[in-house]
Amino acid sequence: MNIALIGFGTVGQGLLKVIEEKREALKDRYLLDLNIVGVADSKGAALNDDGLEIETLLKVKERGSVLQYPKYGKNLTGSDLIKESNADLIVEITPTSITDGEPGITHIRYALNEKKHVVTSNKGPLALFYSDLIDLARRNDVELRFEASVGGAMPIINLAKETLAGNNILAIVGILNGTTNYILTRMLKEEEPFSYILKEAQELGIAETDPTLDISGVDTACKLVIMANALMDMKSSYKDVRVEGITRITPEAIELAWKNGYMIKLVGEARNSNLEVGPRLVPAQHPLSVEGTLNVAMLETDLAGEVTVVGRGAGQKETCSALLSDIIAVYKNSMIR
Amino acid sequence: MNIALIGFGTVGQGLLKVIEEKREALKDRYLLDLNIVGVADSKGAALNDDGLEIETLLKVKERGSVLQYPKYGKNLTGSDLIKESNADLIVEITPTSITDGEPGITHIRYALNEKKHVVTSNKGPLALFYSDLIDLARRNDVELRFEASVGGAMPIINLAKETLAGNNILAIVGILNGTTNYILTRMLKEEEPFSYILKEAQELGIAETDPTLDISGVDTACKLVIMANALMDMKSSYKDVRVEGITRITPEAIELAWKNGYMIKLVGEARNSNLEVGPRLVPAQHPLSVEGTLNVAMLETDLAGEVTVVGRGAGQKETCSALLSDIIAVYKNSMIR
Repeated sequence: MNIALIGFGTVGQGLLKVIEEKREALKDRYLLDLNIVGVADSKGAALNDDGLEIETLLKVKERGSVLQYPKYGKNLTGSDLIKESNADLIVEITPTSITDGEPGITHIRYALNEKKHVVTSNKGPLALFYSDLIDLARRNDVELRFEASVGGAMPIINLAKETLAGNNILAIVGILNGTTNYILTRMLKEEEPFSYILKEAQELGIAETDPTLDISGVDTACKLVIMANALMDMKSSYKDVRVEGITRITPEAIELAWKNGYMIKLVGEARNSNLEVGPRLVPAQHPLSVEGTLNVAMLETDLAGEVTVVGRGAGQKETCSALLSDIIAVYKNSMIR
Repeated sequence: MNIALIGFGTVGQGLLKVIEEKREALKDRYLLDLNIVGVADSKGAALNDDGLEIETLLKVKERGSVLQYPKYGKNLTGSDLIKESNADLIVEITPTSITDGEPGITHIRYALNEKKHVVTSNKGPLALFYSDLIDLARRNDVELRFEASVGGAMPIINLAKETLAGNNILAIVGILNGTTNYILTRMLKEEEPFSYILKEAQELGIAETDPTLDISGVDTACKLVIMANALMDMKSSYKDVRVEGITRITPEAIELAWKNGYMIKLVGEARNSNLEVGPRLVPAQHPLSVEGTLNVAMLETDLAGEVTVVGRGAGQKETCSALLSDIIAVYKNSMIR
């Protein structure tokens, strides 16, 4: 199967390394031969219908050089690459924007219209234009898969669609943001205020320099809305979510909750067409009460009851795991056609 | 798709009810039209290539009558039914035996040799003869699926195979038996000895009259070996598992562990070709420390890190959920052929 990557940062480079490492295993296990025919980032692009050398691509990137192959005199953009290349599947992993979904939304639309499958980790386009994109994929008879967009290595979308097939998903309740879960966990252990722990998390690289999207609950809202659209047939945008963040939580409140057997967690919940994100009390022994940067999602179903999945919500390898499982699924399903 | 059930107890009856309830949803969502063409239990069988009426089957069973349709003068056995019927898929849900795997093993072998797909909740045949059965399915180019055999509604086999596709599973650690987890949870809360809590669990119907397989750890060992064979390419029987049960755990030990932040759990672990079941200390805030009758499995993977799934390990509806997801998967995959 021919693949092109749009976006070539940490995740893109990680994905190429994983594909190289797993080349033989993928052939043995799935008869899947992955051929990288294009890579684009914000500065340039490389394209070769016969396949690019992963080692060379990684070296160019490590050197800080611009991707550019002699065959093409000018730099190609992401959209050019999608059009020019013979890729069957586009991996869209550019940085996310929740304002307008760009540049991901343009790439995804373009790829689907060119009848190429899309696998993405990009939250913005999905949190803003989920229904449009799903319709576009359906009309063009290709797949749009996005496991990596909601919980890194916590496999929740495909879990519900494949392994709980036949169930109705009645509600989704989850802790979907590792940064805030880390901050709340540390506030309990250290009994220090929010601002102190946030600074610590930033120094450790767990929180970003601008942590607004995480601590305001907006990142959780984006993930929640993608899950609710995908698993509960909602047709929402993240703007429909009632959101409260964690900035007003005090160590005293956390301490008081703990003494009564509870933990304060930033919880996202989708139920009866309502979408909410906010701090909640979770019993200390409840499956939802996971610590540190872990993510967790509990699905309430009509047959299986509550099913809970815990996993790492972020990280290079973890995101690559989700992207790779989606790539394999597209390949398997494409054999039906 | 034509289906026949071998075994028509609680789970079989539940499955027919679920299929009836979900008939339209399955058509809408998957274009799947399930037609029940045969049902057998230990006393008799019913067979109709055009389809049996679910309502009639359930009524016959409720009345305590023997399944027997006029067209066939004599009672059919399970194997006869497999041979005579036009079923594409056999659901094998007879009571399990871990001594010789009968009668399930005979039914499953017979069905696979007749080139019929098999979906089963039957642990015994898989814990004893896993490799043989998988080979037999492969040689006959049909599927053998068994999500329901390991954790009821905790979807672990398909989770690892589908949603973690591309990962290597390095280890499996889990609490795979609801009865023992309930007993250990209650011993902590009540500070009463094992024998007292066991009796309570029996009165509540959570523990069986003969709880030997559960409390000795053998049930956990069977599930562990099925998971290790399926996900880690081991070729083991449950007799290869080093097993210790929970009968010697005292309330004092549980109390001491709790004071130090731990819970005592009956844990099964597969790692580096070693298979072990026994009581272990689990940190109280660890994803594995689930309470009551819940089951949990943690997979250690090379890309996704640790992924944990928590769900109900048993129950009629829960087992039906697992059987149904396997039936849907067989149907989807059969479109490839």
